[in-house]
Amino acid sequence: MAQVLIIGLGLIGGSLARDLRRCGHRVTACGRDAARLAPAIGLGIVDAVEADWQVAAASADIVVLGVPVGRTREVYARIGPHLAAAAVVTDVGSTKCSVVRDLKALCGQLPARFVPGHPIAGTEHSGFAASVEGLFAGRTVVLTPTPDTDPAATARVTALWQEVGARVLSMSPEQHDAALALTSHLPQMLAYTLMGQFAETPGTPLAPLVGSGFRSMTRLAGSDPVMWRDVSLANRAQLSLALRRYLERLGELAAAVDAGDAARLEKLFAAAQAAQHRLPPA
Amino acid sequence: MAQVLIIGLGLIGGSLARDLRRCGHRVTACGRDAARLAPAIGLGIVDAVEADWQVAAASADIVVLGVPVGRTREVYARIGPHLAAAAVVTDVGSTKCSVVRDLKALCGQLPARFVPGHPIAGTEHSGFAASVEGLFAGRTVVLTPTPDTDPAATARVTALWQEVGARVLSMSPEQHDAALALTSHLPQMLAYTLMGQFAETPGTPLAPLVGSGFRSMTRLAGSDPVMWRDVSLANRAQLSLALRRYLERLGELAAAVDAGDAARLEKLFAAAQAAQHRLPPA
Repeated sequence: MAQVLIIGLGLIGGSLARDLRRCGHRVTACGRDAARLAPAIGLGIVDAVEADWQVAAASADIVVLGVPVGRTREVYARIGPHLAAAAVVTDVGSTKCSVVRDLKALCGQLPARFVPGHPIAGTEHSGFAASVEGLFAGRTVVLTPTPDTDPAATARVTALWQEVGARVLSMSPEQHDAALALTSHLPQMLAYTLMGQFAETPGTPLAPLVGSGFRSMTRLAGSDPVMWRDVSLANRAQLSLALRRYLERLGELAAAVDAGDAARLEKLFAAAQAAQHRLPPA
Repeated sequence: MAQVLIIGLGLIGGSLARDLRRCGHRVTACGRDAARLAPAIGLGIVDAVEADWQVAAASADIVVLGVPVGRTREVYARIGPHLAAAAVVTDVGSTKCSVVRDLKALCGQLPARFVPGHPIAGTEHSGFAASVEGLFAGRTVVLTPTPDTDPAATARVTALWQEVGARVLSMSPEQHDAALALTSHLPQMLAYTLMGQFAETPGTPLAPLVGSGFRSMTRLAGSDPVMWRDVSLANRAQLSLALRRYLERLGELAAAVDAGDAARLEKLFAAAQAAQHRLPPA
């Protein structure tokens, strides 16, 4: 049984809290506003909510930062000095180079017992009220330890995620950020852009003409704009590369449409269809 | 009880056949290869499969063309001369100006008892084996009659779709094609392009890093490349406009990422989120 402290009880933090309690751990939550978190106790999400971060940090075996990537540094600055020597810290942020950079700037080097992490799980909803049990079962969690990271800390965080059913993958922060720019951050930008274009198109009322395809392509646009503002800036370089490549490819497709190039279009579509069929089942 | 002939028994034709039979109509299917359609009888999708298109056309009260838009003209040429005087014909193609143009070219004017139509329903799957009951319940079907169209024919096709639970909207072929370029054809291009980029990105194996967001943004890429080649060319002018606007918007977003313009990004994302929340429930 571990004492787990979750700072920032959102969708990810709340769902992890539910699963960890089921596994027999004791889970405490801290946040900017303890009163706002208090209902999570009654909902069975956490065992306790603690207004005093120093007290909570001092008694934790494992701390999970569930805050947006833009707040990692400020949150670590508040708890770092109060952690027990054996405590392990991890985070769930969508970008990893920025987290490593921010903690290096704060501490001189990445703290040896901080293991950067990112569960590939989530929905367009946010807040602990949207949390669910079993969110991580069968999902991938990426850990991005650096040469500064204590292997025992990485092992401890790996075991925690495995307990809630996740598969843990290890890679460098750079590999993570390049891959996620394509598999997560770029798709998010595409959904926001499509939904924005829909909203600003005058003329025929479009809502009755929306089918399941459009809904599927804009579901992500329901996501928190502030969180995504921070993610897109935290992973700016990689996201920019992915956007530029996408703009180039979509420009080529548009040129083929304009040219009436049937063979080229069919080839592009067929290659994409084959790749979609090769995706592993959800 | 009407004698309904469906030419081209795919996902849409097959699903419509199932529902029309439940409503008490007799449904016959024709296709390029009658032997390939024969199993649809045993599956309870249709009452009969007829190899001789002329015979089938002569005895039909209502004919539904379930073929890709690129084949409408050739199919109508085969059945038109054999239709009973009172017979009504409609289609389910994803573009409407091209269908009107092709039939005008064939017949001199749009046949008075041909009602161009488009059910906003479907999935990334194709073929009658993927057909389901109730596909059109609560869905929108757009009819695009022209001044040449007999209002009684439009009323008959409207009643048919209402019988299977659809809401029928009427608009001009031009309005339809402009709207669907944005709500359907553009999203399809975005999904193919994202999936293509994923497939051609070297380095880290990406499949384990795919979450529900990426799946949602690439589901449409599983769709039939030949059908979409034809749709994108049939609605070339409107699709090109939608693609150009999208490229411009995404280029602006990329510029904001490069500039680190947090306020601009948050504004774009928040406007899109608000629009997504305003979409009517599915």
